[in-house]
Amino acid sequence: MTDVILRNENLRRILSGHPWIYKTEIDHIEGNYEPGGIVDVYDHKKNFIGRGYINLKSMITVRLLTYEKDELINEDFFKKRILRAWEYRKRIMDNLNSCRVIFGEADFLPALIVDKFGDYLVVQTLSLGMEKYKTLIVNILLELLKPKGIYERNDVSVRMLEGLPETKGFLYGNFDTIQQFEENGVKFWVDIENGQKTGYFLDQKENRAAIKKYVKDADVLDCFSHTGSFSVHALHYGAKSVETVDISESALDMAKKNVALNGYLDRCHFTCENAFDLLKKYDEENKQFDVIILDPPAFTKNRETVKDAIRGYKEINLRAMKILKKGGFLITCSCSQHISPDAFLNIIKEAAHDTRKNTRLIEKRTQSKDHPILLASSETEYLKCLILQVF
Amino acid sequence: MTDVILRNENLRRILSGHPWIYKTEIDHIEGNYEPGGIVDVYDHKKNFIGRGYINLKSMITVRLLTYEKDELINEDFFKKRILRAWEYRKRIMDNLNSCRVIFGEADFLPALIVDKFGDYLVVQTLSLGMEKYKTLIVNILLELLKPKGIYERNDVSVRMLEGLPETKGFLYGNFDTIQQFEENGVKFWVDIENGQKTGYFLDQKENRAAIKKYVKDADVLDCFSHTGSFSVHALHYGAKSVETVDISESALDMAKKNVALNGYLDRCHFTCENAFDLLKKYDEENKQFDVIILDPPAFTKNRETVKDAIRGYKEINLRAMKILKKGGFLITCSCSQHISPDAFLNIIKEAAHDTRKNTRLIEKRTQSKDHPILLASSETEYLKCLILQVF
Repeated sequence: MTDVILRNENLRRILSGHPWIYKTEIDHIEGNYEPGGIVDVYDHKKNFIGRGYINLKSMITVRLLTYEKDELINEDFFKKRILRAWEYRKRIMDNLNSCRVIFGEADFLPALIVDKFGDYLVVQTLSLGMEKYKTLIVNILLELLKPKGIYERNDVSVRMLEGLPETKGFLYGNFDTIQQFEENGVKFWVDIENGQKTGYFLDQKENRAAIKKYVKDADVLDCFSHTGSFSVHALHYGAKSVETVDISESALDMAKKNVALNGYLDRCHFTCENAFDLLKKYDEENKQFDVIILDPPAFTKNRETVKDAIRGYKEINLRAMKILKKGGFLITCSCSQHISPDAFLNIIKEAAHDTRKNTRLIEKRTQSKDHPILLASSETEYLKCLILQVF
Repeated sequence: MTDVILRNENLRRILSGHPWIYKTEIDHIEGNYEPGGIVDVYDHKKNFIGRGYINLKSMITVRLLTYEKDELINEDFFKKRILRAWEYRKRIMDNLNSCRVIFGEADFLPALIVDKFGDYLVVQTLSLGMEKYKTLIVNILLELLKPKGIYERNDVSVRMLEGLPETKGFLYGNFDTIQQFEENGVKFWVDIENGQKTGYFLDQKENRAAIKKYVKDADVLDCFSHTGSFSVHALHYGAKSVETVDISESALDMAKKNVALNGYLDRCHFTCENAFDLLKKYDEENKQFDVIILDPPAFTKNRETVKDAIRGYKEINLRAMKILKKGGFLITCSCSQHISPDAFLNIIKEAAHDTRKNTRLIEKRTQSKDHPILLASSETEYLKCLILQVF
């Protein structure tokens, strides 16, 4: 066995259950190990902390898999963890046609992502240690979930930090990578091979369902629509009209296909434009909507650009508040991990103050329950979705 | 018209839409006024801010009713406001058999509370200004909601701050004050005359519905059960067994009646004990549960005792985490207004850290949507309900 001994420092974060050990927290390593291999982690007094996999190439040098000394990391371990993750989804999700099956650290399987779209699974192994178990994991998934196919979407730059190449392709089966799935009773196309991340953002599933009561009979503006997931839901829930806005022609093409798939083209129109510009224009034109949905991409991916991101969020929310009818609803999201739930709420308060709009907070939402939040790891909480009524 | 001129100070809170004007914020008053009468509020440069009612006896000297200069405070005003509140509930609530019809400041009707239990309404007018419109409000409610009866629950000490007496009694009709109503498909008795506040805590309605997925087939411990609202829901959603705990014999009697009303007595047993002591005892006995519900009364009603409250919350949550089976669910609430959502989450994090329990946050909930939160008034956000999975 290889032992990683930590420095004599405050270990509160780790002892609370955050599974990452940074390089700077390691005092020394006793014994041999291979990159991605299993090690035991101890404090400087040689008290056992946990067991995980190591990669000296990564600043996150160890990711812990268990805190139980007698739990070995083998096929049985992965079977139990994956089964536990699946049993959890079976309990808490209304429909398992589409869902996140495994959410990495928050399912105690660091750096492993598995998404389900109908009969197909998409897998990401984002660390060297997890990569080593990929075949094993695929076999367990085949046995447990019996998918028709499994696809690998490891074409993500974060793998570089682990010394891993970017790659994508079939892990099981050979199938059309454009597939249909269902979410909240709505049908969608997913591009498993070329869609963003794993092909579709499942984390908004419950937030999309939550718009039901607000959009009925409403004129809806859906900004940063991407492939139209909120638009199709709004139409499905009885919106009078939806304007679907995205700057990307190809995203909007996919949105059109999704609206068409559900038979709602007659109530929807598509605007290929920068949402910042369009909101400004509609404000100047005094155009008004009953409901506005803002689901922008992350405006910041690091701490340095947080200030710009805050300015961006404030700008779009302020404009949206101005073009809402009195008593209209604003459904506003942020997926920037570096903007905390409180910080986002404060941005909205600032926007409300600046527009002198009396605003009620109706729902304070986060990512869907198949993306649980590890209490010890703030990194696992990233999605904010507020529903507000603006007077 | 009477004009209240504010001091040359930072008016950010007021301009953001917080409807309270404190005595210390007033520079002077121009014109005559009667206690509870309508006044216009201006900044020191004589810019119009809003219109509301005044009571020099109260530290909250003016409560604003409107920010629109041309909106007069008359019967038509109250009709429109009450209709707007009701239309909102009709849109966002699944079932209107029971709900909060008017939530004071957050419905732009400061100090007015109206709750609905089946065919009966319970009204509170907690300020002199609102008290003056009581008859008018009752007539509008009769016309709009056509209740069989209306009861006044003004037996609350906060009325003293307004120079008002405590009182309760019939405002319309003469009826049995023990009534049945429905919530999430579950039947309840409400004691309109002698129950706490308006008789029943409607603010937990959606949180009670949210326990559905977690309690199925589970052994549930419901601490601070009061009249058993969470217990009956757990039984309704298929719990294997429920232990209903409260220190009050009379609350537990009512809980028994509610469990019996729904026909679930065979799966429920009742323990009249201090929940602090019982949790400690069960911890020592290594007794275990699948689900624990903690819905204590407010541990603090002012800023001075916040530290004690934090200790209390930490104690019960820590004990509960220790007696949950691995993977069990903790449903934990706080209705103390002086403990913010973040502060409450931090208490839970501390408890998880101290017990070395890996904990996932599944849902971060607040009061039901018929108790909306006024963005400018932190006082209107008070209920926290976290659902956690403890490993």
